[in-house]
Amino acid sequence: MTDDSSSINSETTNPGAGYQLMLRLRMRNERGMHGKIATVLGENGADILDIDIHEVGSEFIVRDFLVLCDGHDQAAEIVKATEAVDGCDLILASDRTFQLHQRGKIATRNKVNIRTNAELNHVYTPGVGRVCMAIAEDPSAAWSLTIKSNTIAVVTDGTAVLGLGDIGPEASMPVMEGKCMLFKSFADIDAWPICLDTTDTEEIIQVVKAIAPGFGGILLEDISAPRCFVIEERLREELDIPVFHDDQHGTAVVVLAGLVNALKLVDKRPEELKVRVLGVGASGVACSKIMMEYGVKDVIGFDRTGAVFQGRSENMNPEKEWFAENTNKEGFQGDLADALVGADVFLGLSGPGLLEPEWVDGMNEDAIVFALANPVPEVMPDEIHGKARVIATGRSDFPNQINNVLCFPGLFRGALDAGAKEITEGMKIVAARAIAETIPTEQLTEDYIIPTVFNEEVFDTVAEAVRQEAIRTGNNRPEHADIYIQ
Amino acid sequence: MTDDSSSINSETTNPGAGYQLMLRLRMRNERGMHGKIATVLGENGADILDIDIHEVGSEFIVRDFLVLCDGHDQAAEIVKATEAVDGCDLILASDRTFQLHQRGKIATRNKVNIRTNAELNHVYTPGVGRVCMAIAEDPSAAWSLTIKSNTIAVVTDGTAVLGLGDIGPEASMPVMEGKCMLFKSFADIDAWPICLDTTDTEEIIQVVKAIAPGFGGILLEDISAPRCFVIEERLREELDIPVFHDDQHGTAVVVLAGLVNALKLVDKRPEELKVRVLGVGASGVACSKIMMEYGVKDVIGFDRTGAVFQGRSENMNPEKEWFAENTNKEGFQGDLADALVGADVFLGLSGPGLLEPEWVDGMNEDAIVFALANPVPEVMPDEIHGKARVIATGRSDFPNQINNVLCFPGLFRGALDAGAKEITEGMKIVAARAIAETIPTEQLTEDYIIPTVFNEEVFDTVAEAVRQEAIRTGNNRPEHADIYIQ
Repeated sequence: MTDDSSSINSETTNPGAGYQLMLRLRMRNERGMHGKIATVLGENGADILDIDIHEVGSEFIVRDFLVLCDGHDQAAEIVKATEAVDGCDLILASDRTFQLHQRGKIATRNKVNIRTNAELNHVYTPGVGRVCMAIAEDPSAAWSLTIKSNTIAVVTDGTAVLGLGDIGPEASMPVMEGKCMLFKSFADIDAWPICLDTTDTEEIIQVVKAIAPGFGGILLEDISAPRCFVIEERLREELDIPVFHDDQHGTAVVVLAGLVNALKLVDKRPEELKVRVLGVGASGVACSKIMMEYGVKDVIGFDRTGAVFQGRSENMNPEKEWFAENTNKEGFQGDLADALVGADVFLGLSGPGLLEPEWVDGMNEDAIVFALANPVPEVMPDEIHGKARVIATGRSDFPNQINNVLCFPGLFRGALDAGAKEITEGMKIVAARAIAETIPTEQLTEDYIIPTVFNEEVFDTVAEAVRQEAIRTGNNRPEHADIYIQ
Repeated sequence: MTDDSSSINSETTNPGAGYQLMLRLRMRNERGMHGKIATVLGENGADILDIDIHEVGSEFIVRDFLVLCDGHDQAAEIVKATEAVDGCDLILASDRTFQLHQRGKIATRNKVNIRTNAELNHVYTPGVGRVCMAIAEDPSAAWSLTIKSNTIAVVTDGTAVLGLGDIGPEASMPVMEGKCMLFKSFADIDAWPICLDTTDTEEIIQVVKAIAPGFGGILLEDISAPRCFVIEERLREELDIPVFHDDQHGTAVVVLAGLVNALKLVDKRPEELKVRVLGVGASGVACSKIMMEYGVKDVIGFDRTGAVFQGRSENMNPEKEWFAENTNKEGFQGDLADALVGADVFLGLSGPGLLEPEWVDGMNEDAIVFALANPVPEVMPDEIHGKARVIATGRSDFPNQINNVLCFPGLFRGALDAGAKEITEGMKIVAARAIAETIPTEQLTEDYIIPTVFNEEVFDTVAEAVRQEAIRTGNNRPEHADIYIQ
């Protein structure tokens, strides 16, 4: 069992991965060649998605075959098989995912043109000098006269990237660029990846504080526990802009959103729930905290040693200490199977196959099972159909995907729009409610408790709820006049 | 006299600044109102650039007047005068430069769309995991699979911004955003501003090293001397990507470009020149170094104390020590006026009006005067017409603007294209030659020794020269195959 809070995003072999292989083949221009290739591809289990002509000569034709296959091993087999076809040369074999990553996935653009000296004089010297001085006189003017108010730093040290672990800052870049893309695509926020060549807690804090002036918020991402707690806590205290560790709180917000809607279906109130959490790492703490903030009273956490209780000495760490101190009020010391008897909610943030389907039989009526380990959940949904009423996973190929992409873009959009100084518990809870409420009550079903990320309303709804909550609690900055005379 | 190396960019009251005032006026809809306003504007010295109708009612009309004025004081006068016109209400008075800065000048964009789960699966989880692993196995793959190969950090601590001095990181943002715009506009490089909330030399070095993995190069900008030397030197040693302090070397490259062309006009060789440099700060050192690298033998530097010579003890600092040790071989101890007798080149990087026109009379035939103080040069060009043959300034409203925008975009384009590990002296010199050679010899005149930044060839020419020089000297990275199978 991993305690890795990033497990929700860790799917690397999920069927949805879509390993698409592009083969560029130079074939003798004779009848039957095309069919011969198609046969070889079919024999090797490749589904042909698309065929295109790249170049035609008098005696040859170059075609691009785009095929779907299971993964690297099968791709290698397919490549080998096509190379062996007489009269056919392989020019290029490429992987669509890798093609899309060439030279990275994000870029900058200028919001103002520079075509003449007059334009240059406005956006650069000498005109820019007056703008600088206006900010020097009133630093808060940076919120209206610079990119700060729409800019997020996506910060990682590469120590807990997806389910891949400590792969270092360079290797974490594709994920951080992806995060920046999601910010742009779903909330029109300008985010830039900052991948740190240090894993020292104090140094990370120092670096993020040092670069903060140009950013309106910090998204911490894929930093391993327990350093992620200290780093987030200290930065929240020492900076006046929102700092948010997505692996903990993004997951927690979307879990709560799912729970809110599941409770509507089963008509239970949070106060009466018995919740059992398997996986007591960073995201386990965050999920339990937000559920308790929402009203849940009875939570017990489990790791491979068993229940976490006050006084337990074996295999403890700071996250588990939190569980010992704040949950399991009755000091339950048994195993998960026993604890699930009469329980209402199972939340798994652990590893593949760790929930035995028969344990669900003992749960309370209308059991809710969130099995979020990725790529393989704690229990496969079809193993507990009929046993649990509502089932959610982290995968896009089953109903009810708990996807933290649903949270952070809208959450930060709202925070930036309010000029928020931090992300409060209240802002997270209204975000969760807003995600939940995107689905009208009459549309709610056991298989539809969570919207997809392509739901057009969800990000705006979250943003507006978060913005209003920030203003309601005075956690906002007054708006700057947009027009100045200096 | 300032020793501030950034003086070339420090123009804040240059006539080219173009203070454009936009007045939105709600006027009674009666004959003669328009003329009354125009008269008031004219009486207050405002040139009307444009008039537009914003809104029309039954009894009123709202018009936008765009007028050119000299600066803030005149703008305030104009605003006051229009407010006093009977039957006319001022709705809005705004400054075009400030308008263009609203919410900043740069943004991000996605290079790949996210419209479906299939697309999301490629650029984010789960597909991204394979790309991460490819980089984890071979970190150099970050050059082809992430934004690194086209991304520059524009780093400042806000201590020497333009001629404005230590105005802090927030207030420096408009300049850094401007720099990023120039990178984009002139060299299609993605640059992001990193404005640091620390002025501690060691901490700046540590922070830049920590954030380096995601960047292909570092442009240091507007960091005050002598810290800028230490920071650049240490980062050059400790990082394997180009680090370039623009205030020093950008200026130096463009000065050398101007000198190269000026020497063609006057038919002199660098070896035979006597060069006198007024202003022995960061850019003075950089300009002298590059000229000496180019072949100049006889350089003497001056500050307000006089010539810098070996053994001088009064008013010294590390930059002046460099001058004492590396220039003025004959130990000249007199003043600038004496040193200019028989000299070929005056290079001013100091302050307004510090070169007396009559001192130029004593210079050698075909004297070259680069008076680069901004906004007011060491001598106004019209004061020495007929005395000096070639005159350059830092201003766009005189011929021969020494503008370091000519250097850094193309220089970094070439460095990134080569995967260069550093910016060498050789790369700077080929950049200077490339800028110079943009002007065909037959087009060279005393008033045209330097191309404008809107010359369409200059950046490509510089980039290609720098790329080739990096490869020639083995300061490059082998190109990564652009297509992978993993």
